[in-house]
Amino acid sequence: MEPVKVTFQPDRKTVQAQPGEKVLEIAAREGVNVNNLCGGQGVCGKCRVKVLEGKTRFTGKGVGYLSRKELEEGYVLACQTEVLEGHVEILIPPESRKEDEQILTTDRLMEYDEPVALEEERRPGVFLKRQPLSQKFYVELPEPTLDDNLSDLERIYRDLRKQTSAPTLQTYFGCLPELASMLRSNDWKATVTLYLREMDHPHIRVIEPGDTRARNYGVAIDVGTTTIVAQLVDLNKGEVVGVEASHNRQARYGEDVISRMIFACSRKGLDPLKNAVVNTINTLLKTLVEKAGIDLEDIMCFVGAGNTTMTHLLLGLEPCHIRLAPYIPTATQFPAVQAHNVGLMGHPQSILHCMPCVSSYVGGDITAGVFACGIHDRPEIGALIDVGTNGEIVIGNNEWLVCCSASAGPAFEGGGTKCGMRATRGAVEKINIRDGKVFYETIGKAGARGLCGSGLIDAMAELVQARIIDQGGSFIDLDHPHVRVVEDVPEFVVAFGEETETGEDVAITEDDISNLIKSKGAILAAMKVLLESLGMGFEDLDHVYLAGGFGTHLNVERTIFIGLLPDVPRERIHFVGNSSLAGARRGLLSAQVFHKIESIARTMTYFELSVHPDYMNEFVAALFLPHTQMELFPSVRAMLESRG
Amino acid sequence: MEPVKVTFQPDRKTVQAQPGEKVLEIAAREGVNVNNLCGGQGVCGKCRVKVLEGKTRFTGKGVGYLSRKELEEGYVLACQTEVLEGHVEILIPPESRKEDEQILTTDRLMEYDEPVALEEERRPGVFLKRQPLSQKFYVELPEPTLDDNLSDLERIYRDLRKQTSAPTLQTYFGCLPELASMLRSNDWKATVTLYLREMDHPHIRVIEPGDTRARNYGVAIDVGTTTIVAQLVDLNKGEVVGVEASHNRQARYGEDVISRMIFACSRKGLDPLKNAVVNTINTLLKTLVEKAGIDLEDIMCFVGAGNTTMTHLLLGLEPCHIRLAPYIPTATQFPAVQAHNVGLMGHPQSILHCMPCVSSYVGGDITAGVFACGIHDRPEIGALIDVGTNGEIVIGNNEWLVCCSASAGPAFEGGGTKCGMRATRGAVEKINIRDGKVFYETIGKAGARGLCGSGLIDAMAELVQARIIDQGGSFIDLDHPHVRVVEDVPEFVVAFGEETETGEDVAITEDDISNLIKSKGAILAAMKVLLESLGMGFEDLDHVYLAGGFGTHLNVERTIFIGLLPDVPRERIHFVGNSSLAGARRGLLSAQVFHKIESIARTMTYFELSVHPDYMNEFVAALFLPHTQMELFPSVRAMLESRG
Repeated sequence: MEPVKVTFQPDRKTVQAQPGEKVLEIAAREGVNVNNLCGGQGVCGKCRVKVLEGKTRFTGKGVGYLSRKELEEGYVLACQTEVLEGHVEILIPPESRKEDEQILTTDRLMEYDEPVALEEERRPGVFLKRQPLSQKFYVELPEPTLDDNLSDLERIYRDLRKQTSAPTLQTYFGCLPELASMLRSNDWKATVTLYLREMDHPHIRVIEPGDTRARNYGVAIDVGTTTIVAQLVDLNKGEVVGVEASHNRQARYGEDVISRMIFACSRKGLDPLKNAVVNTINTLLKTLVEKAGIDLEDIMCFVGAGNTTMTHLLLGLEPCHIRLAPYIPTATQFPAVQAHNVGLMGHPQSILHCMPCVSSYVGGDITAGVFACGIHDRPEIGALIDVGTNGEIVIGNNEWLVCCSASAGPAFEGGGTKCGMRATRGAVEKINIRDGKVFYETIGKAGARGLCGSGLIDAMAELVQARIIDQGGSFIDLDHPHVRVVEDVPEFVVAFGEETETGEDVAITEDDISNLIKSKGAILAAMKVLLESLGMGFEDLDHVYLAGGFGTHLNVERTIFIGLLPDVPRERIHFVGNSSLAGARRGLLSAQVFHKIESIARTMTYFELSVHPDYMNEFVAALFLPHTQMELFPSVRAMLESRG
Repeated sequence: MEPVKVTFQPDRKTVQAQPGEKVLEIAAREGVNVNNLCGGQGVCGKCRVKVLEGKTRFTGKGVGYLSRKELEEGYVLACQTEVLEGHVEILIPPESRKEDEQILTTDRLMEYDEPVALEEERRPGVFLKRQPLSQKFYVELPEPTLDDNLSDLERIYRDLRKQTSAPTLQTYFGCLPELASMLRSNDWKATVTLYLREMDHPHIRVIEPGDTRARNYGVAIDVGTTTIVAQLVDLNKGEVVGVEASHNRQARYGEDVISRMIFACSRKGLDPLKNAVVNTINTLLKTLVEKAGIDLEDIMCFVGAGNTTMTHLLLGLEPCHIRLAPYIPTATQFPAVQAHNVGLMGHPQSILHCMPCVSSYVGGDITAGVFACGIHDRPEIGALIDVGTNGEIVIGNNEWLVCCSASAGPAFEGGGTKCGMRATRGAVEKINIRDGKVFYETIGKAGARGLCGSGLIDAMAELVQARIIDQGGSFIDLDHPHVRVVEDVPEFVVAFGEETETGEDVAITEDDISNLIKSKGAILAAMKVLLESLGMGFEDLDHVYLAGGFGTHLNVERTIFIGLLPDVPRERIHFVGNSSLAGARRGLLSAQVFHKIESIARTMTYFELSVHPDYMNEFVAALFLPHTQMELFPSVRAMLESRG
């Protein structure tokens, strides 16, 4: 068959394809930037493109994401459209372009980081007080003589013992074959990299010529199901040098962890999933080192924090038994592994350490987050609510910790909603409705492109307060100038096309609201069941930490108003952003912290909600804004009553 | 050029070769068994073959190893003879056949071994008292349930903690990828292999299906310059299951460590030397497992003991700076290394541990020997004299240890002597000369093939006592019926051709005796200098341990008589055979012992004889039987005087 010529606009990029190939696949292969959240399943509606010319075939799956007008204009979903013959010309509109690098990585816990050490503190005889997982030491060895004839390796040990308080030193065998030549051709000057995961048994993993101490970097990685964030950290100074984020390329194999597990455990799917996450991280690494002006080989170690499935997939461990009862992972505490063996770039001897998990559905992202919030460290009762593709809840203090997981879905990350998007440039993050008018703010003050988590929360709270929807999420004011009905579904237009970047309206539909209510209901119900099993209630929580990529302007009142957070005194509520990343960074910067997080993971008691008799009732009761039992939300009730 | 057809007799094996190829190389390539000690340098005379037919060219190097009669009959050295054209027929006479498997491996220290544990001692809750470097544990895990939902790895840890007293458990990452499937398809029954080199930090390196506890073997290897000996040990029972020995195939690259170092450090010679020793060991391993009826995969760990150069070559570390002042090895204590990475057969995850060295010329064979003899353990002063290709001496007790190395050469191992051979079948190991008649015994009661170490010692002592040679080693009785002069060199015929296996005479020449005197002189001088530097004399030695492959019937009186051992009370002298192998086995059977040997190595003080002002004078003074200062050997003097 004749190949098809495909031109992508506005890039004017022309490529060849086989008849029958999908537009999304062609774009992915040729490096053309097309958004895609569901992995080409036709269920996210994010890959809308316009066929300008030529013969194509749209399967029709996901047609609900396109309006009649759009269909008439030639819009299709790239993942559901095949090119057929001749010359095909495709327009990728602005809203369908990925903007990976612009994902906001709110990390509100950075201020809690303690500096590892200032350069001037690096004096002989002491390790850095907080031992980063890799430390570099410079040695200038005296040339051997007949009277001082220690072996090359023992000469290094002798020097290191003066610089460190390490009780014993061990060496990775791979350092030895080149050692003799290297020392002699470099004037006996070398830099030794110690790995300190086993604090009492530091291992020399790298011995390289000259003084490379200044180039000692680590990378903390939040390995999210939807989004992956990597932070480049100067391990000498304890400072964050850069941060990059990207969609997890695994998304092409399924939007959520369940569909990825099914893929991984059939048709030899483990390797593609592993490669997808590794490639995603490697792309971030390349950008990080380029922007920081360092080399990939300056990256000496990694700490990854992800949910249990993501951690298994990153390490190439089969996640098949995580999915089905009794939900058993291969491991919850993970041995260190040479990063190159996993496929990560960086120094060839660099090590990947993964944050420990508690169970199949409470992973390393959560244990890292508990540490970052300090819940394990205080006598007061704290709760961590991490809203990602799943919702996880931890409650406890310095004596005990319990946790559970709720299938919240990715609604607050923009998934499954018509104009939902992640907290990137152009996302509406703040909304007010006053006197029939809508005021909104976007991230980066850009033209509106969609609604991120905080924007969705604001929208729901404002729509109830403006009596446009009721507390069940149904539209009750169909006459409002911003309300319209599209194909029988009412929706509220936040920004009309004339003022958006895309020229398309940004709206929230009744279906979107229903999804969001299910998400927040799953989380609140889980927290309530967990507290009740401890004989406690919301009022017993001294601190509530909300983690997740909501956007920068999350509003406490509104978050309580919709019932995502319990109605507790406002000063008890802390928005902590990406607590997983913060915990990973803390572990990277201190072996003690890494071990503390491992001990936190062992301490945490997991509650399996799927078999809890009360959970389903509580879930149904929470499908209301804020909740069917209004007495649980006295301040919200008071406010609504005061408005009459 | 037309290839040459070469037929080897008596095997009747016909092969093709290139014109100009050496007979020894053709034989090596085609697996035809031809002896060779010097590595094809023409300096050992062990590869004599007879050209029966065809055109060949003998370079003439090493012609001194052939008598005129032999030359007339067509004998040549295989390493110095090229095949030229047509059909060449070569006879390999019996004395030129390797009999690798028959090398005696006198290991007189086996009786000191303590059994690791009897099978019935293996009960839950205790490690084996003396921890072998690898131990196997069987687990039958309860199937997980929602109430008992530990991860696969944690289930194993939980079971192991009941069986062992290990404070912490760690796992090699490579165990994890297949773990989930393996446990589920094998009814949750598995055998876990722990590696215990770091006693407080045991590592799980292998998790395999079913109960394989019974198959837990290790191999102790004496990595000698000339001979390699491997002992297969049942790590459960602490019993030796088999032993095999072989010429070190590195010999083709040079007879002694110096020439091998030169080869290794030029022309990319490290890899061939490493491969040669690894292949030698692998051949032994295959024979060991075949005879024991086990699989190569049942070998879980290795302990190698060799001199510093041999250890470097085995591990693939460049030995280049060992050779030249100030004689610096890459390392003296060696990290554990995955045996497969070195090239050794055995379980893919098996580990090679190398015995620690002291310096470039006192290696792991000696530290292992010190432990095996127990010198480090007693207040009395002990001396270990290890006579191999080099001679090493250690003196000390439980408070201090000093050591040195003497370039003794391989004369007592059969090198550089006309009819010298190692202690294998057919070696004359015992000689008496009475009333002009010669009585001798051979190993295995076979027809004589040559003289091993104890035979050479006996010959020298008897020749002096019978006044056939003088104390300087010169022949004085040329009329003795067993004495004759061959090409101007007098020699003593121990066994005439009519009673030998080969039909050739077995004799010791004046040149042989001169070589042997140099060897023993180097060793005795070294011991004297070492003692004097401590303010001590031979009389201060409470125990003298003589190690080396001399043969089974070493005679104390004669060993003193020739001046290889000092003239101390006879009960102080102990022939310990292969103490290096014994020490390696003890280390294999106990991590505590391995660590003790590492600490012994750190304790030992090395004396560099090459720069010692007295050494050369002492060496010259020792070139006499037993010594020019007869007052040092009062009992020998008394005996000689009593005979008038």
